[in-house]
Amino acid sequence: MANRRSKPKTRLKVIALGGLEEIGKNMTVLEYGNDIIIIDCGLAFPEDDMLGIDLVIPDITYLAKNVEKIRGIVLTHGHEDHIGALPYVLKQLKVPVFGTLLTLGLLENKLREHKMLDKTTLHTVVPGEKVKLGEMVVEFIHTNHSIADSVALAIQTPVGMVIHTGDFKVDYTPIDGDIIDLQRFAELGSQGVLLLMSDSTNAERKGFTMSEKNVGKVFERIFEETPRNRIMVATFSSNIHRIQQIINAAYMYGRKVAIIGRSMVNAVKTASELDYLWVPPRTLIDINEIKNYRDEQLVIITTGSQGETMSALSRIANSEHKQVSVKPDDKIIISASAIPGNEKNVIRVVNELLKKGADVVYGGIEDIHVSGHARQEELKLMLALTKPKFFMPVHGEYMHLSSHRDLAISMGMDKKNIFVNKLGDVLELSKNEAKVTGTVPTGQVMVDGLGVGDVGNIVLRDRKHLSEDGLMVVVVSMEEETGQIVAGPDIISRGFVYVRESEGLMDGAREVVMKALQECEEKNITSWNYIKNLIKDTLKNYIWQKTKRSPMILPIIMEV
Amino acid sequence: MANRRSKPKTRLKVIALGGLEEIGKNMTVLEYGNDIIIIDCGLAFPEDDMLGIDLVIPDITYLAKNVEKIRGIVLTHGHEDHIGALPYVLKQLKVPVFGTLLTLGLLENKLREHKMLDKTTLHTVVPGEKVKLGEMVVEFIHTNHSIADSVALAIQTPVGMVIHTGDFKVDYTPIDGDIIDLQRFAELGSQGVLLLMSDSTNAERKGFTMSEKNVGKVFERIFEETPRNRIMVATFSSNIHRIQQIINAAYMYGRKVAIIGRSMVNAVKTASELDYLWVPPRTLIDINEIKNYRDEQLVIITTGSQGETMSALSRIANSEHKQVSVKPDDKIIISASAIPGNEKNVIRVVNELLKKGADVVYGGIEDIHVSGHARQEELKLMLALTKPKFFMPVHGEYMHLSSHRDLAISMGMDKKNIFVNKLGDVLELSKNEAKVTGTVPTGQVMVDGLGVGDVGNIVLRDRKHLSEDGLMVVVVSMEEETGQIVAGPDIISRGFVYVRESEGLMDGAREVVMKALQECEEKNITSWNYIKNLIKDTLKNYIWQKTKRSPMILPIIMEV
Repeated sequence: MANRRSKPKTRLKVIALGGLEEIGKNMTVLEYGNDIIIIDCGLAFPEDDMLGIDLVIPDITYLAKNVEKIRGIVLTHGHEDHIGALPYVLKQLKVPVFGTLLTLGLLENKLREHKMLDKTTLHTVVPGEKVKLGEMVVEFIHTNHSIADSVALAIQTPVGMVIHTGDFKVDYTPIDGDIIDLQRFAELGSQGVLLLMSDSTNAERKGFTMSEKNVGKVFERIFEETPRNRIMVATFSSNIHRIQQIINAAYMYGRKVAIIGRSMVNAVKTASELDYLWVPPRTLIDINEIKNYRDEQLVIITTGSQGETMSALSRIANSEHKQVSVKPDDKIIISASAIPGNEKNVIRVVNELLKKGADVVYGGIEDIHVSGHARQEELKLMLALTKPKFFMPVHGEYMHLSSHRDLAISMGMDKKNIFVNKLGDVLELSKNEAKVTGTVPTGQVMVDGLGVGDVGNIVLRDRKHLSEDGLMVVVVSMEEETGQIVAGPDIISRGFVYVRESEGLMDGAREVVMKALQECEEKNITSWNYIKNLIKDTLKNYIWQKTKRSPMILPIIMEV
Repeated sequence: MANRRSKPKTRLKVIALGGLEEIGKNMTVLEYGNDIIIIDCGLAFPEDDMLGIDLVIPDITYLAKNVEKIRGIVLTHGHEDHIGALPYVLKQLKVPVFGTLLTLGLLENKLREHKMLDKTTLHTVVPGEKVKLGEMVVEFIHTNHSIADSVALAIQTPVGMVIHTGDFKVDYTPIDGDIIDLQRFAELGSQGVLLLMSDSTNAERKGFTMSEKNVGKVFERIFEETPRNRIMVATFSSNIHRIQQIINAAYMYGRKVAIIGRSMVNAVKTASELDYLWVPPRTLIDINEIKNYRDEQLVIITTGSQGETMSALSRIANSEHKQVSVKPDDKIIISASAIPGNEKNVIRVVNELLKKGADVVYGGIEDIHVSGHARQEELKLMLALTKPKFFMPVHGEYMHLSSHRDLAISMGMDKKNIFVNKLGDVLELSKNEAKVTGTVPTGQVMVDGLGVGDVGNIVLRDRKHLSEDGLMVVVVSMEEETGQIVAGPDIISRGFVYVRESEGLMDGAREVVMKALQECEEKNITSWNYIKNLIKDTLKNYIWQKTKRSPMILPIIMEV
């Protein structure tokens, strides 16, 4: 990237390091001259082929190279795909972090787990507040989302105003009382917005996203219709508004509320402490107390709405939860929709709960969930209020970004002013012009256990090979100088066949390898490379012929 | 299972070996005295945790033990989950197979691949035909489904009439001209039906399943609105009616049709030869001829509607298809809905096609697919027409079977007469009574390459372990009698870390193992079991401490 400071008119650079062509690891960089600000720093969940990987974070090579320019990280809200990578990234970039109270509250929990809390500078902001970061000024604007305390960002740069919506929807009857600050967006729009970056998640969906209050009404109705049975509700632990509504309904119907699932317990604790959750007195009970109450006096709020294996609801479904067992006629509400990829897990949990006699309510049956992301009418509203000169759809798979672009085109925006970018594309803006001028390094950094980035494609490729057909280890001891076989070949397999039932196959394998090795001895071949490759090829062909499988073959020569 | 022939009143036994609490590997056994008939014999696709497995077939232990009783296998239709296990099962059970023309046509292709064709006796039947199998008489009744030539079965037994619907829907405007034979079901219902087994796949969905003709109308509209561009349609190769409508629309708009994808080419060939598909003269062209035509003269029908990795559409999306490349403004229609588990694959393919500039039409946007399975109103119709004494929902996950039961209850059927069974449950019926009296062995037999059933839980567990954290092999050469270390320990890893970047870790690993081994030498421990376990534990603790990962550890001692 050429340093453009020497040129008379510095341009603003906008670079996404995450969140484009994916839903996850959102991270956007704004760079003006000697100042960089980072918007969000999230993680992504591993794809199915990332075997053994715990999570994925953005590649910050570009930022590490320019660390002295970074003025701060500003956060839009506390979801994992916006803050989850911070404990890792902050180890390399020691920069201040700005966010709202709940957002930083959730972040603190993470930093504490990673023993990073005392090494990090956190600044709490409120909607309406402005923070000067170098030559850019960031204003935080209240929005509605499926987590409280979410904000959009209006960043005043010398080149023009940049708005980043964060994740948002328009909720005219929000739970916490404040509609998204449409007036402010309108004001900024009339003053002139250079670039809008907006949430594309639901850009393919027509109409409006329903209000969170709707779900509350459905809960009330279900509670009304279920006077005698225990009620359990699984939902996202980050959706404090949803939890509030469940607690409200419980209170209305004279039920106590118990919370289970580690992330749910933590979220409720943090939100209560920071006053984002109002729990009526004497409503919350500990899970161990539920035996002191009748079924009709209980509501249990739990993790596991995505069928996650170790979640509380999954463990309950598999009769593995220490304190909670399903009773026939329990009313179990799954207050979430399945994120693509999780459908089978949800089906599995629902089946198990039904088998145990529970009455399960989920997406297909009732409106017990609404999205936190704007649909087409709300996205068009945002475009109409802000009237940006240039538009960059963010936060979506290609299909979502593309649909969002089509929306803007349908409203009369010129295709040339809309940028459906790739990660790493450098969008350079001046007062009147915007274009992609180059790229910076980007990528996925995989986290596995304590290791960050040490699992690359070769390791994954090997894991995949091992997972499909297992492994055969062939060990031979050879005399160093003569190449004489001293012991072996011993063949050990794992994940290939059940050896006790396949002795004939293994004996045959040993024979063909022995034969190949003897030929090497006779021809006085001592090159280990040659011998190893011969073992590999011989065994591979034999096994394929017999089984049509290709286990990984690992020849090991011990020199004695 | 006690032989009940000696008792005065023989009971009918109904046993599902597949298709309950799952969608896949459908197989139901009817046993009366010395006669067994088998309804369908399908395969299931492997679950996500069945690493490396190709397909899953039912466990037929019970049938193998009673093979002399088996009078035949009757097939309801030619989908994989109804005929896919036959090439394997027929190797053990050499019994005749009865099915309609297209069903046997598709089966023949499979048997030919497995070199089983000349060893199998196939009898073609037509709807209305009755076949006597021992003391039971099987009548084939025409139904509508997402494949042509599908039938329900009405099995007259000495105890009473049993109806098995197969997979069905009610289509009042079917493509091949014949509405499902409602009159026959009504007739049987008035004569008295002892047991109904009915398709539960869409039992949770309200209303009616739309007619296949609707999709044809949508195609016509899309073709009308796309006068200038090339059109591609991805759909299920087994849905001949869908393919017919695409061909019809192509013909109407003066386009040639090319077929790609092995299973699609085979299906079209088989269906045409058997007159299930009418292809207007000079309409079909070979894929290699497409370059001789302009875009607006072409329709390409392809496999890949589920985003399957090796399918033609996936390869096209990844620019890997030899004859077809995406052109900007290609109209690509995905005429299917994503089966649970396949959503991410479909999203991936759609993204890639959009990026290449294609205009992609899929489920969310247009009604370009209808299900082949009856929804609630049709299922209630079937119950109302047949008025069975006893009811056993089949073909569904637990949630579907359970919903189907609820439907019957809502119509006034007594809960006691409805059986939501598990695989292997033996449902015994007399004229007036039905109850589950025991179980037979059942299970999943996994097919991997040529091996059938030789990959069991241990092998899968090992594959899972290997896939998550990889493997470390520790090889030591020891003198047989003294236990002296002659060479090693050598440590080789795969799928664990990228070794070149982790030399410190591997060196440390070698040291701790060496130390442990030296202690064994000093203490004169020669028990290999002990030494191997010590190596395992020592290394495991070291690696966990350093990386929080648990690779499989394979200690190997070479005796020299």
